[in-house]
Amino acid sequence: MTHSGDDRTLLSTRISPRDLAALTDATRDFIREEIQPLEEAAKGDIEAAGGDRVRVKMQHAAKAAGVFAPQVASEFGGHNLNMVDRVPIFEEAGYSLFGPLALNVAAPDEGNIHLLQHVANEEQRDRYLRPLARGEFRSAFAMTEPAPGAGSDPSALRSHARRVDRGWVLSGHKHFITGADGVDFYLFMARTKGMPGDRGGATMFLVPADTPGIELVRHLETIDRSMIGGHCELTFTDVWVPDEAILGDIDLGFDFAQWRLGPARMTHVMRWLGAARRAHDIALAYVVNRRGFGRALGELGMTQQLIADNEIDLAATRALLMTACSKLDGGESASQATSIAKVFGAEAICRVVDRSMQMCGGLGMTDDLMVARIYREVRPFRVYDGASEVHRWAIAKRAFSMARTQYGG
Amino acid sequence: MTHSGDDRTLLSTRISPRDLAALTDATRDFIREEIQPLEEAAKGDIEAAGGDRVRVKMQHAAKAAGVFAPQVASEFGGHNLNMVDRVPIFEEAGYSLFGPLALNVAAPDEGNIHLLQHVANEEQRDRYLRPLARGEFRSAFAMTEPAPGAGSDPSALRSHARRVDRGWVLSGHKHFITGADGVDFYLFMARTKGMPGDRGGATMFLVPADTPGIELVRHLETIDRSMIGGHCELTFTDVWVPDEAILGDIDLGFDFAQWRLGPARMTHVMRWLGAARRAHDIALAYVVNRRGFGRALGELGMTQQLIADNEIDLAATRALLMTACSKLDGGESASQATSIAKVFGAEAICRVVDRSMQMCGGLGMTDDLMVARIYREVRPFRVYDGASEVHRWAIAKRAFSMARTQYGG
Amino acid sequence: MTHSGDDRTLLSTRISPRDLAALTDATRDFIREEIQPLEEAAKGDIEAAGGDRVRVKMQHAAKAAGVFAPQVASEFGGHNLNMVDRVPIFEEAGYSLFGPLALNVAAPDEGNIHLLQHVANEEQRDRYLRPLARGEFRSAFAMTEPAPGAGSDPSALRSHARRVDRGWVLSGHKHFITGADGVDFYLFMARTKGMPGDRGGATMFLVPADTPGIELVRHLETIDRSMIGGHCELTFTDVWVPDEAILGDIDLGFDFAQWRLGPARMTHVMRWLGAARRAHDIALAYVVNRRGFGRALGELGMTQQLIADNEIDLAATRALLMTACSKLDGGESASQATSIAKVFGAEAICRVVDRSMQMCGGLGMTDDLMVARIYREVRPFRVYDGASEVHRWAIAKRAFSMARTQYGG
Amino acid sequence: MTHSGDDRTLLSTRISPRDLAALTDATRDFIREEIQPLEEAAKGDIEAAGGDRVRVKMQHAAKAAGVFAPQVASEFGGHNLNMVDRVPIFEEAGYSLFGPLALNVAAPDEGNIHLLQHVANEEQRDRYLRPLARGEFRSAFAMTEPAPGAGSDPSALRSHARRVDRGWVLSGHKHFITGADGVDFYLFMARTKGMPGDRGGATMFLVPADTPGIELVRHLETIDRSMIGGHCELTFTDVWVPDEAILGDIDLGFDFAQWRLGPARMTHVMRWLGAARRAHDIALAYVVNRRGFGRALGELGMTQQLIADNEIDLAATRALLMTACSKLDGGESASQATSIAKVFGAEAICRVVDRSMQMCGGLGMTDDLMVARIYREVRPFRVYDGASEVHRWAIAKRAFSMARTQYGG
Repeated sequence: MTHSGDDRTLLSTRISPRDLAALTDATRDFIREEIQPLEEAAKGDIEAAGGDRVRVKMQHAAKAAGVFAPQVASEFGGHNLNMVDRVPIFEEAGYSLFGPLALNVAAPDEGNIHLLQHVANEEQRDRYLRPLARGEFRSAFAMTEPAPGAGSDPSALRSHARRVDRGWVLSGHKHFITGADGVDFYLFMARTKGMPGDRGGATMFLVPADTPGIELVRHLETIDRSMIGGHCELTFTDVWVPDEAILGDIDLGFDFAQWRLGPARMTHVMRWLGAARRAHDIALAYVVNRRGFGRALGELGMTQQLIADNEIDLAATRALLMTACSKLDGGESASQATSIAKVFGAEAICRVVDRSMQMCGGLGMTDDLMVARIYREVRPFRVYDGASEVHRWAIAKRAFSMARTQYGG
Repeated sequence: MTHSGDDRTLLSTRISPRDLAALTDATRDFIREEIQPLEEAAKGDIEAAGGDRVRVKMQHAAKAAGVFAPQVASEFGGHNLNMVDRVPIFEEAGYSLFGPLALNVAAPDEGNIHLLQHVANEEQRDRYLRPLARGEFRSAFAMTEPAPGAGSDPSALRSHARRVDRGWVLSGHKHFITGADGVDFYLFMARTKGMPGDRGGATMFLVPADTPGIELVRHLETIDRSMIGGHCELTFTDVWVPDEAILGDIDLGFDFAQWRLGPARMTHVMRWLGAARRAHDIALAYVVNRRGFGRALGELGMTQQLIADNEIDLAATRALLMTACSKLDGGESASQATSIAKVFGAEAICRVVDRSMQMCGGLGMTDDLMVARIYREVRPFRVYDGASEVHRWAIAKRAFSMARTQYGG
Repeated sequence: MTHSGDDRTLLSTRISPRDLAALTDATRDFIREEIQPLEEAAKGDIEAAGGDRVRVKMQHAAKAAGVFAPQVASEFGGHNLNMVDRVPIFEEAGYSLFGPLALNVAAPDEGNIHLLQHVANEEQRDRYLRPLARGEFRSAFAMTEPAPGAGSDPSALRSHARRVDRGWVLSGHKHFITGADGVDFYLFMARTKGMPGDRGGATMFLVPADTPGIELVRHLETIDRSMIGGHCELTFTDVWVPDEAILGDIDLGFDFAQWRLGPARMTHVMRWLGAARRAHDIALAYVVNRRGFGRALGELGMTQQLIADNEIDLAATRALLMTACSKLDGGESASQATSIAKVFGAEAICRVVDRSMQMCGGLGMTDDLMVARIYREVRPFRVYDGASEVHRWAIAKRAFSMARTQYGG
Repeated sequence: MTHSGDDRTLLSTRISPRDLAALTDATRDFIREEIQPLEEAAKGDIEAAGGDRVRVKMQHAAKAAGVFAPQVASEFGGHNLNMVDRVPIFEEAGYSLFGPLALNVAAPDEGNIHLLQHVANEEQRDRYLRPLARGEFRSAFAMTEPAPGAGSDPSALRSHARRVDRGWVLSGHKHFITGADGVDFYLFMARTKGMPGDRGGATMFLVPADTPGIELVRHLETIDRSMIGGHCELTFTDVWVPDEAILGDIDLGFDFAQWRLGPARMTHVMRWLGAARRAHDIALAYVVNRRGFGRALGELGMTQQLIADNEIDLAATRALLMTACSKLDGGESASQATSIAKVFGAEAICRVVDRSMQMCGGLGMTDDLMVARIYREVRPFRVYDGASEVHRWAIAKRAFSMARTQYGG
């Protein structure tokens, strides 16, 4: 690896249980007191709330409350939490749809910060990472392409970089690029070697958003509304960048992307777990106070089943996160554990929100309660970041491969 | 019963299989050629499509195509289909979110027509039923109240009617009144005897929408968008109506409502079944044409499982509809069968749409495909018209009661 | 086709609703009064009950009660019911694990009778069909082979028939041959053309069980105990049969097997549906009479959910049977409908029995109640006669193929 | 508390990760090499294997292998593992149906040892605990009674103890007393105060099995076969015991039982988790080696789904065990966590075994593979030790109660 960073200074650390509890409490209080009012007033629509203006305002407040950027390395202004300790904090952040943005732990910036901390060289750290970690920049990870390009199968990558004197010319068509509208720079994945279908040969480039040749074609009108900058379709047409734009090493883009992938997958689950717990709490508040058939709704057996199943799903998701994050922190092989936590978590989260909506009856279908909004926000998570089917396929293949070694004839 | 109608003239009939097949084909063609283009252009939002203006236009087209009002008695201009024969026709109508409106088989008018055909007297038929059946009027069924009023438990009804000379004064607070905005008249349920919690004592009143004292408080912002006139909150404050406003008989409102309930529940399932099949077809078209891992997506085992489970859920919903509708047509006791068809159908329909969305991957989360819109439209059906929990409770109680008779010690 | 039978005389007919109701009642009474006591005394183990001796005794009783062989053509002594009318009768038969045997509607004889009625020539009818229909013979369908032979994929058939002067010499290895121990004759499927993997080229032979060269290797110790003659492993070694042993036509064995397959699949579902309803009734009797937490167990919300889900699963299975059987009776293409009814039915039946067991608490795990025995009997049905995965695969392939025609690019 | 034991010497400890890994490996090897052959030869039926004779033989082997009694305090001859460290060891033990017995970690002795370690006085330790921990004694926990006695609701306890001079006379009717046949002593729960329905007032007595007045009425014929001593029905009729027989304190039996309950619930899950993993491994070995449709079965998409869901369920059960055991070890309130781990674990374990059986096709239904036996062993776990419904009810009540405090009007 060519970057000059000293990994030891970056290694996230485990803070004391007492400090973690205090930070968790502070985060919880901050979210409920300062973020939820903004989010509820805008019904969870970040653009309706004010878009980037409200992001800046919330991030100032988070800094003032001492809860900003908990996962960022100390040298870049954060609390340097390891993966295990992020679990409770990110869950608290996710309790409000705007919470992750307020703390600068939202996708895709959070994953990009993680990646840049490990891969960026000194100059790239100063130019991109520091302002990103401080919330002065926003970024996007431009990887996914329309069919038949890179999707579930990254090796289908078609965007390409052509070598020119002292730099590269990038071209490609991307979609579902989260946060792209209003971004300061892109991490752009392009093929520097081989053909679509080849497993290696990709390179990541850091590209300022105002570089000529980049066009934001449209917003994909997805059913979620809480991601600032939307989910966009983009074209890169003959975009020139200098050699210094290369992140990590030439042709190793897929390998570097793996550094981002496992942790980013887990932080997604943490955040949406918070949203699911929010929905559950809304439902609990409802069934505690509404009565029917002579009792509080929450004392009826079928409601109790919904409540219990929610408690189980929330606990199991949290437990699988802890398992996978322990492995990530310990440097163990974690792909099976992160796939399992992702696929179980995504499905459990959707089940929890669906049951919560059901518990709220007719009102659960309206914007009177945030639960209907959360329902729309969480649904894509069973597709984004690896559809459940793709993760199951990967899980089964690993198990099959080990079993063939052990039992194969 | 006091109405002057001759039930024999109203009895819906079974047309020949050949005629039914022809009407089904005509309906299918009409929906695909004339309604889907309008619906897709408006992304399934009826107000965005033009609201009442587009309704009128679509209904004219349906009349021209000979597919209008298939369930309405011949004397009021329809095809007089029995419940069993409505199954394929309403499913075809529901294939487009705007289809039921186009054919005048949409809730709540369809259920109201059904009720009026059986209960209205000659004068009420002329004044309300005929224009409603022709699509010149729209109507609403004003029953549900905010907590602690009539909801899952109708006996909690709080709206009341006070006897005055030669008429009644109605007061009450209603919500989730589907279609109320723009309506011509209401069927208003009010208590004429007893107290909230008493099982009987309600009366239905036919109330022109322009009667003084009716206020449309607000639209409930639900996640669905295809119901013309929305889901509204209303107040009736000292609304005077004459004796002639009474539908059926005094104090028998709950009994008459039962006439509406079973069939209306089944026609809901039929329509949403069409929407679910639409979602399934969208997904099939997607996985037939998109490739991944060297094959059409639809040839991968996990996609095959989603396809097969959709086929099973659609077939089982249709089969349960046939069972329940046969009982309704035969005059048998059908409450258990309609409850079962409703709860299974509503859940199966939501599963089908969810799987279809999943099959379409990222695009399934966007408005590029109608499936994401359908996802929002069908979700409330697990709550509206009796939440799944309430139906299960009723199903279990009936089974328990029969078992106690047979096995009880 | 070469047989001399007049299909018109065989066509099963629909009896009047009144006669069907009477036969259903008679069957129900017969099963409860005469068969259940025998079955319960033997805890559902047919060998423990007396094996073939008890079969003969029960069949005499069924004849006396006028409920024997309801599906058999009149000319062979039965009631000639069509598929739709078998649904309620076979369900009543299946209510006791010994009921199908008592009525001569048990697998595999029932399916073999069906096949012979359509395919056997006059001589074969006299020699095999008539005594089989009267319960004087038992038979087995020898098709399935150990890996890598014919299983989910019938074309893998390895057993073969070698042409000799005026006859054939059969060899092969079979397993899971239900009822084989004590049988009078086999329907033996062997390859008369081609190689394992080829789609056609099989022939069915009628082989008396005492023909030299047949060895019953062992009983497979399966978890079910109600099938007379067990599930056996057999070898056929140079078994000579004359030309007259051919059933139907040479090389068309797979085609004739299809005649057996669809109906046999549906009658399986009917019988196990009865067993599932029995389990449900046992559970209902239990929760009606046992109390806990101040109420009958069956009035607690979570028990109500189990009851309701059982009612739904039973009704949906029955409804899908009616749909598929209507198609079979009408001569329509029914493969998709029978696959759907089979896979849904098998899974629903297992769910019903599992929930029933759960409702009975600790006692549900014991032989004090028949429900634990039924639990073991129904489990294999998700594998036998086409595993759920194989049926789903077939269902999806049909849907995909139609969709490709309609939507394919 | 009256016992003389020094709790500090009993506190289980966390051994080093390296030592734990070594003990895990040794346990795994021991089980596979020495226990599985015995178990497979007997098809998992402990009585068929030789009953108590084989128990003694296996326990000697476990001592020789250094893997005996891993959870027992050092002073009683064990490895003194805390709850978290028991998770991998007990899972390895449970990998064979006979493994827990071989290691002396089987129910009910394991739970009884746990209880006696915390509650028994010095004399009771010498007389009962030491020989029990060494495997010289077997014991039973006599709590559950036939309806309407103590079951899901322990306060329904009807067995009673009458005070006499220098002792007590015990009477009561018990059933589902696991291991009772051949036992050396009972922990007998009887009411010393109050009436059935009162929440307190129970006392635990240590009763030698040869005390006059104890009758073993019968074995309940449950579907499982791996528990030595069966599940028995017993009567205690005027059984005299001296004052010294009291375990812990008079009237505090329910409180002491709580000490046993949480940990015993978790060790159940650990052991059955091992059995589920065994079933999964059997299935993997099968689908790795069997081929169909041109590939190994384990490479077909629907099989991959079964494999992946098994991996997910196993991982989630393990993760929830770790969460709950951490709380138990840390002295935190753990009832919600143990209920969640129990209900999820029991259901997940049954799902895993069911899917494994399905993957093995027809052979999965036979005793050729251990999976069909495991299927019968694990089913009762959704009822024993608190049925899923009872745990869900408790989980919901706790959540509701907390929510009412927080959100209640």
